[in-house]
Amino acid sequence: MSGLFGAINTSDRKSDIAKTVYYGIFSLQHRGQESAGIAVNNNGTFMVHKQPGMVADIFDDVTLSALGGECAIGHTRGADKVIGSDGIQPILIKSRVGNIALSSDSSILNDDEIRDDLKNQGAIFQTNTDSEIILSLFSRNRIGTEDSEHALLETMKNIKGVYSFVLMTEDKLIGVRDPYGMRPLVLGKKGDTYMLSSENCAFDALDAELIRDIEPGEIISISKEGINSLYFDDAKTSEQRVKDGNVCIFEYVYVARPDSVIDEMSIFDSRYKTGQALAKEHPCECDLVIGAPDSGNAAALGFADGLGVPFGMGLLKNRYVGRTFIKSTQEQRELAVRMKFAVLKTQVKDKRIAIVDDSLVRGTTTKHIIRFLKDNGAKEVHVRLASPEVKFPCCYGVNASTNADLPATRMTVEEIRDMIGADSLGYISLKSLKEALPTIHCGTCSACFDGNYIAGKPCPKTDSVHNVTYN
Amino acid sequence: MSGLFGAINTSDRKSDIAKTVYYGIFSLQHRGQESAGIAVNNNGTFMVHKQPGMVADIFDDVTLSALGGECAIGHTRGADKVIGSDGIQPILIKSRVGNIALSSDSSILNDDEIRDDLKNQGAIFQTNTDSEIILSLFSRNRIGTEDSEHALLETMKNIKGVYSFVLMTEDKLIGVRDPYGMRPLVLGKKGDTYMLSSENCAFDALDAELIRDIEPGEIISISKEGINSLYFDDAKTSEQRVKDGNVCIFEYVYVARPDSVIDEMSIFDSRYKTGQALAKEHPCECDLVIGAPDSGNAAALGFADGLGVPFGMGLLKNRYVGRTFIKSTQEQRELAVRMKFAVLKTQVKDKRIAIVDDSLVRGTTTKHIIRFLKDNGAKEVHVRLASPEVKFPCCYGVNASTNADLPATRMTVEEIRDMIGADSLGYISLKSLKEALPTIHCGTCSACFDGNYIAGKPCPKTDSVHNVTYN
Amino acid sequence: MSGLFGAINTSDRKSDIAKTVYYGIFSLQHRGQESAGIAVNNNGTFMVHKQPGMVADIFDDVTLSALGGECAIGHTRGADKVIGSDGIQPILIKSRVGNIALSSDSSILNDDEIRDDLKNQGAIFQTNTDSEIILSLFSRNRIGTEDSEHALLETMKNIKGVYSFVLMTEDKLIGVRDPYGMRPLVLGKKGDTYMLSSENCAFDALDAELIRDIEPGEIISISKEGINSLYFDDAKTSEQRVKDGNVCIFEYVYVARPDSVIDEMSIFDSRYKTGQALAKEHPCECDLVIGAPDSGNAAALGFADGLGVPFGMGLLKNRYVGRTFIKSTQEQRELAVRMKFAVLKTQVKDKRIAIVDDSLVRGTTTKHIIRFLKDNGAKEVHVRLASPEVKFPCCYGVNASTNADLPATRMTVEEIRDMIGADSLGYISLKSLKEALPTIHCGTCSACFDGNYIAGKPCPKTDSVHNVTYN
Amino acid sequence: MSGLFGAINTSDRKSDIAKTVYYGIFSLQHRGQESAGIAVNNNGTFMVHKQPGMVADIFDDVTLSALGGECAIGHTRGADKVIGSDGIQPILIKSRVGNIALSSDSSILNDDEIRDDLKNQGAIFQTNTDSEIILSLFSRNRIGTEDSEHALLETMKNIKGVYSFVLMTEDKLIGVRDPYGMRPLVLGKKGDTYMLSSENCAFDALDAELIRDIEPGEIISISKEGINSLYFDDAKTSEQRVKDGNVCIFEYVYVARPDSVIDEMSIFDSRYKTGQALAKEHPCECDLVIGAPDSGNAAALGFADGLGVPFGMGLLKNRYVGRTFIKSTQEQRELAVRMKFAVLKTQVKDKRIAIVDDSLVRGTTTKHIIRFLKDNGAKEVHVRLASPEVKFPCCYGVNASTNADLPATRMTVEEIRDMIGADSLGYISLKSLKEALPTIHCGTCSACFDGNYIAGKPCPKTDSVHNVTYN
Repeated sequence: MSGLFGAINTSDRKSDIAKTVYYGIFSLQHRGQESAGIAVNNNGTFMVHKQPGMVADIFDDVTLSALGGECAIGHTRGADKVIGSDGIQPILIKSRVGNIALSSDSSILNDDEIRDDLKNQGAIFQTNTDSEIILSLFSRNRIGTEDSEHALLETMKNIKGVYSFVLMTEDKLIGVRDPYGMRPLVLGKKGDTYMLSSENCAFDALDAELIRDIEPGEIISISKEGINSLYFDDAKTSEQRVKDGNVCIFEYVYVARPDSVIDEMSIFDSRYKTGQALAKEHPCECDLVIGAPDSGNAAALGFADGLGVPFGMGLLKNRYVGRTFIKSTQEQRELAVRMKFAVLKTQVKDKRIAIVDDSLVRGTTTKHIIRFLKDNGAKEVHVRLASPEVKFPCCYGVNASTNADLPATRMTVEEIRDMIGADSLGYISLKSLKEALPTIHCGTCSACFDGNYIAGKPCPKTDSVHNVTYN
Repeated sequence: MSGLFGAINTSDRKSDIAKTVYYGIFSLQHRGQESAGIAVNNNGTFMVHKQPGMVADIFDDVTLSALGGECAIGHTRGADKVIGSDGIQPILIKSRVGNIALSSDSSILNDDEIRDDLKNQGAIFQTNTDSEIILSLFSRNRIGTEDSEHALLETMKNIKGVYSFVLMTEDKLIGVRDPYGMRPLVLGKKGDTYMLSSENCAFDALDAELIRDIEPGEIISISKEGINSLYFDDAKTSEQRVKDGNVCIFEYVYVARPDSVIDEMSIFDSRYKTGQALAKEHPCECDLVIGAPDSGNAAALGFADGLGVPFGMGLLKNRYVGRTFIKSTQEQRELAVRMKFAVLKTQVKDKRIAIVDDSLVRGTTTKHIIRFLKDNGAKEVHVRLASPEVKFPCCYGVNASTNADLPATRMTVEEIRDMIGADSLGYISLKSLKEALPTIHCGTCSACFDGNYIAGKPCPKTDSVHNVTYN
Repeated sequence: MSGLFGAINTSDRKSDIAKTVYYGIFSLQHRGQESAGIAVNNNGTFMVHKQPGMVADIFDDVTLSALGGECAIGHTRGADKVIGSDGIQPILIKSRVGNIALSSDSSILNDDEIRDDLKNQGAIFQTNTDSEIILSLFSRNRIGTEDSEHALLETMKNIKGVYSFVLMTEDKLIGVRDPYGMRPLVLGKKGDTYMLSSENCAFDALDAELIRDIEPGEIISISKEGINSLYFDDAKTSEQRVKDGNVCIFEYVYVARPDSVIDEMSIFDSRYKTGQALAKEHPCECDLVIGAPDSGNAAALGFADGLGVPFGMGLLKNRYVGRTFIKSTQEQRELAVRMKFAVLKTQVKDKRIAIVDDSLVRGTTTKHIIRFLKDNGAKEVHVRLASPEVKFPCCYGVNASTNADLPATRMTVEEIRDMIGADSLGYISLKSLKEALPTIHCGTCSACFDGNYIAGKPCPKTDSVHNVTYN
Repeated sequence: MSGLFGAINTSDRKSDIAKTVYYGIFSLQHRGQESAGIAVNNNGTFMVHKQPGMVADIFDDVTLSALGGECAIGHTRGADKVIGSDGIQPILIKSRVGNIALSSDSSILNDDEIRDDLKNQGAIFQTNTDSEIILSLFSRNRIGTEDSEHALLETMKNIKGVYSFVLMTEDKLIGVRDPYGMRPLVLGKKGDTYMLSSENCAFDALDAELIRDIEPGEIISISKEGINSLYFDDAKTSEQRVKDGNVCIFEYVYVARPDSVIDEMSIFDSRYKTGQALAKEHPCECDLVIGAPDSGNAAALGFADGLGVPFGMGLLKNRYVGRTFIKSTQEQRELAVRMKFAVLKTQVKDKRIAIVDDSLVRGTTTKHIIRFLKDNGAKEVHVRLASPEVKFPCCYGVNASTNADLPATRMTVEEIRDMIGADSLGYISLKSLKEALPTIHCGTCSACFDGNYIAGKPCPKTDSVHNVTYN
């Protein structure tokens, strides 16, 4: 998973474009916090600053001031298949049409095929990233095509998979969303500055205006000359393209930030409504409804409302718990969970608690939490999940899970309930989950729940260059 | 403000005492996150590891394993009057009775007087810390006293101010709480390991048991030989000592962690009850009650309950906002607040919102939040505060405010309401706040609300050695 | 300038190949100390660790142990035309024939032409390095050639310039030296491990044996199957290839380490003999001969011997002076020279001093040194240079000088003498310098002295991707 | 061993006093390179910046600019008995007479006695340094003495040991040299700025003038009011004080920088003369004289001159070898020596080599060097040492050796020759060494050669506070 952000100043006035992008990717860190970077186009000269780490640690005023220019793109990346530092984006290249920078949020399924094909034509690959594949294809496709947009259209035809990306040429900012529309990408505006972002929460942070979602299969190109679009499936109308799209349902369930809106549906509202529907499908006798901190809170509020039982707090999450926690022994791992969550004893004592979470993947943490609640006097603990059973691994990069990890593929609901020690367990049905998204115009990809891999399945992978550059 | 933690293994079995203290101070970081340290006593040899920064960044397995021993104390410190790195604790000294280590959470009011007096006897001071004063006094008082505990008793007589501290000698772990009981200090136990902590949330994290609060004016001393106590006012009974004490009311309002219990009163419950009382004192017509993230949530739940209006979410706090945010221009400062808080538009649109916060000091953030809510369609915004007007600066180190900073000293409630742009503004009365602490046995210090400085006022300060050691 | 080192274990026994390469590049740091890296081939899987900084700071035991494998190449690089961190070598790529790693010491003159040509075929470039050009050419040339060696032969035909490089494929270690033989490259052996190095001083350090110099235009390939060579000019005999070669004469004058041997001529000896010849060409009346620290010592010893005047010490170089010296004001720059050199007053007082240096480029430091010597009582200071006047910029990367910097292009010897404040000044003639290399079998490139650019002149440069990655 | 430097601006003009001290300690790093610091007095406010590491890495322009003031002292420290970072100087304290900063180069023999005595009066100690002892004594002695100088006089009476130190009060810069004059300390001047330094090489670097050596037992005090001196033995004349003094003879043999002058004797000259005398006492048949790099060069030049045999180069020292070399296995240790020294084969082949070193302590490196020379064809290797056999450990901090480490205490010269593999071995006699210092007016301490511990022997040590603060 990655966060993408691009901005272009279409006026002739000077602007702090790198700072705009900085605030943009800062607001998208929930999509990935392992590394970040910003590339700028300063009158045709490109510069990039990128590193492992958190956005606020990578950039300071001095660096941002050095990154002057009229267009910039940024990237924030989560842990993924790439080992070492070679996956840090944006990637900069020089091609026959000049400098190009790219930030991508993608899962290319035929990556090894493309790479092999390009290699056989003499290409070399310095990283394992999708971005390098896209740029290498683009560069070849640019020969004999009239402009960058048509070269990208050809590139989309070569690629099998799901993706959004933002690309910066020497005079344009271009955004691309895959024909399935699986990954979000939105267009915004503040004054003369146009912006592309994975989510509109970044626009709100910048006090910018959301114009619209990029359509599935759309190539949007912004320059001083204006905004133009090209479409993968040109024969369809906009309505059809949207209608035929399938956004990843996990964006609503977990990934996107609650204050974002994807395809005109508020993320928070979708979770709240899911909670209400869950109360209808799986009501329970309880005294207090709590959310699994922090991702279960929106659904828990809806569940409490649906049930007519008070929402409250029973668990606290320690805000100092980061990646660096020491977990070398079993006892320390147990302690690590204790460090992460604290029980409000007086709140849970002698109560029947319903705890609502967004999803249950392996169940280990839920099991610990239930035990903590009971150790602190909870009479009953009922678990309600705002998504169906995860029965299929996501091959589009949203969950790193394999079949073997997924309890729901080999256990019944009752067996899982028993394993985690809950008094009852209820998953919302896929039908109800989809109904909790009343305003969206496209379909959804729910492969992780129903095995329907809309964009197909990946080719097997081969081993890779390991570019280990410690910083 | 500081977090204190000490642990002593009273058995002959080996234990990871430094790891116990590590988890202890990890759980106390809400009391201070500027620096941290752990000192251990390994059979009379003392070692310390301390640095600026967060607990998880300062210690790793290698360091903790190197810190073997049977007793250890830790410290986590917030920003305070000390410049540079010389205030990092614990402090280690050698005295005529051997090695001593000290962690203190204190505000000594007559520090310059004591220092001058000791200097006139030939003492030298290498830091500006209270800890050095305490150790220097202790060392002199230890001449002619029968044991460390009595030397500490003499030291308490020399000191004017509020404090808790934990001290480690070559064979004992000692905890001291000032006669006002203004700063919390609790005793816990897990197996043969006894622990002292600023708050019992650290015991829960360690799966240890809370035994009791240290009494105001108590010197508790733990060794392999057992536990003994000495009292500043020996003539009183335990009940009287507690009854005459005055815990800082801001511990309940803001400082302590919600899952802690001070003087048998749950912090979360005290805030919830305050919210309920606030609903009675300052009800309002509204559609949704929200908490100011994150410190207002407990009171907001109580307020919503008292009012019979649903509690919900209207604001999100960005969990990636840390100390390093760039704020060099006015526009960037505005952006910084936007980065920190996000509005859930669909939740607040066309609604009358009541927002509950723990307290209002300068009001700048509240003002921004109200504007964001209104910009996003909130019809009305009513502010309710779970503490009275802060009219007096705290000279005991809890707030850094001076008179000049405090709007409540120069503005009426109506003027403040106008400044922050709220539709209505209500502060709980001090009387109701105190009533929301039904189970505590001691009094409270509420000097910041009523100007009654129970422990007196400080002497004026003189300038100091600036020991600037960048790391 | 760069230092190259490669090693391959041709036995089946395990060996610490990365440590061998570590010691190799450690011994080659005089050729470049800005960054360093090591890539290993572990049974077809490639890994690299590279960073800005000094070799000893970049690698530790943990890192070297992680770099297991049977073949490795290393690189140590000086400051050059590449901005930022994208020039750090070795570079790793995946090509149609698998993983490839490359370390190069090169100056490609037609780099922009090649890049443009490859871009027009759809290639992309992520760095400004020669290495990426070489690898991109190699990869295309590998299509339709029978093996890597023949692909490299084609690549050599595409490249105009001077270079040595070591390349690692999944089963071979390959070394290439340009047809001019301008950059050194030698073959060595210790047990079953074969090594390629820029200089044989690295073999001595490793207690390995020097086998021979790689011939100009030779492609040497080492694997478990044995050692094979291919030649750029296959028609010639080895003797002819060497005879037609032209090693950079600055290797003897300044670049190479005194204990190295290039084309069977000891570097130290060549400098000593130059000093002796200088005494014949430019004798002087003096009481003491000193070397300009440290690079003038070998020639000074020969000069003293030729003159029959004692060699001694008059100047010390501060061994703590590094890159980090503070030089923001004029006074600080003057101080910086004073920090770098100290005069032994009692040695120089009332004496006529002859100071011998390897070369004089801008003369600034020499001027300061002469003044220091005179300020400390030297009666006369005579400057003797072990190389002719530098009248032409080197376009092969050895000196960064441009025409404008070179005093000898616009001033007579007498004017330079006057500028630096010497009592006399003598440069060795190019003829005598060449005669001081009696045992070498090839010619020399002395373009900087005579303007005879044996490998041609470079094409004009265009601007570039700036990949600024701070560490 | 430490380097001391202090400077005071006695005019009213602004000056960069911290930069002066920076250049001063930069020039004294040969006396200690483990840590460094600078303290400044800015109109009574003191500030210090100190860290582990090298001077050039610790300070930058920003830091130095922040350290404004009219007086400053610096310190550079070698590895010593102090563990961790608590020995980093200067040390700052507040005393009854205000701020004091101290840099010391000392070995106090009765440190534990003093500490115990002060502890019994109630003092506490936070470090294991001599500096803290000196300051604690000074502070007590200041009560009832008329001024700081007399308090220091009392302090000198309390201390048994050898030392020089520079101390900064709120209005003075004070230098103290022990009554034995064992550690050097000199006074210099540039314009209105007076300076104290361990060696005058720092004055040359700053283009300042050496005024004189501080006398044994002198307390020199510099302020805007002028320069005053007080003497430990006031009854003596200056001539007698100097005559009765005993400077450490190892300053001439090894410690001081060759361009320094101690007691009017040039260090370089003393070593050169020692070499000449060595040629008379232990001549040898040889073809080439070389110095053990780098410390043997001065004596080797004198030896070659005395013998009438050419001085030349046979060994090179790698300038990149620092503290960080990897030496975990035996083979790596051997390699480490190979990395450090390179043999110039053509110079040593078939020759009889005389190698001159300043001293031989354990002989391990010498043994390796002899083997390298012989492996590279040297016919004979004769070792000559410019100091007598080291038979006694130095208890004054110059050598860390214990009796057990010193081969000369248990082996004959012949046995040592055999151990190191030399063809002959000659040590200069103590008599000849002393005669090589013709111009000095004081005596010398040669305890390491003759066991005559002029300042007495130390009391046994007890264990200590370990203040381990990693950076």
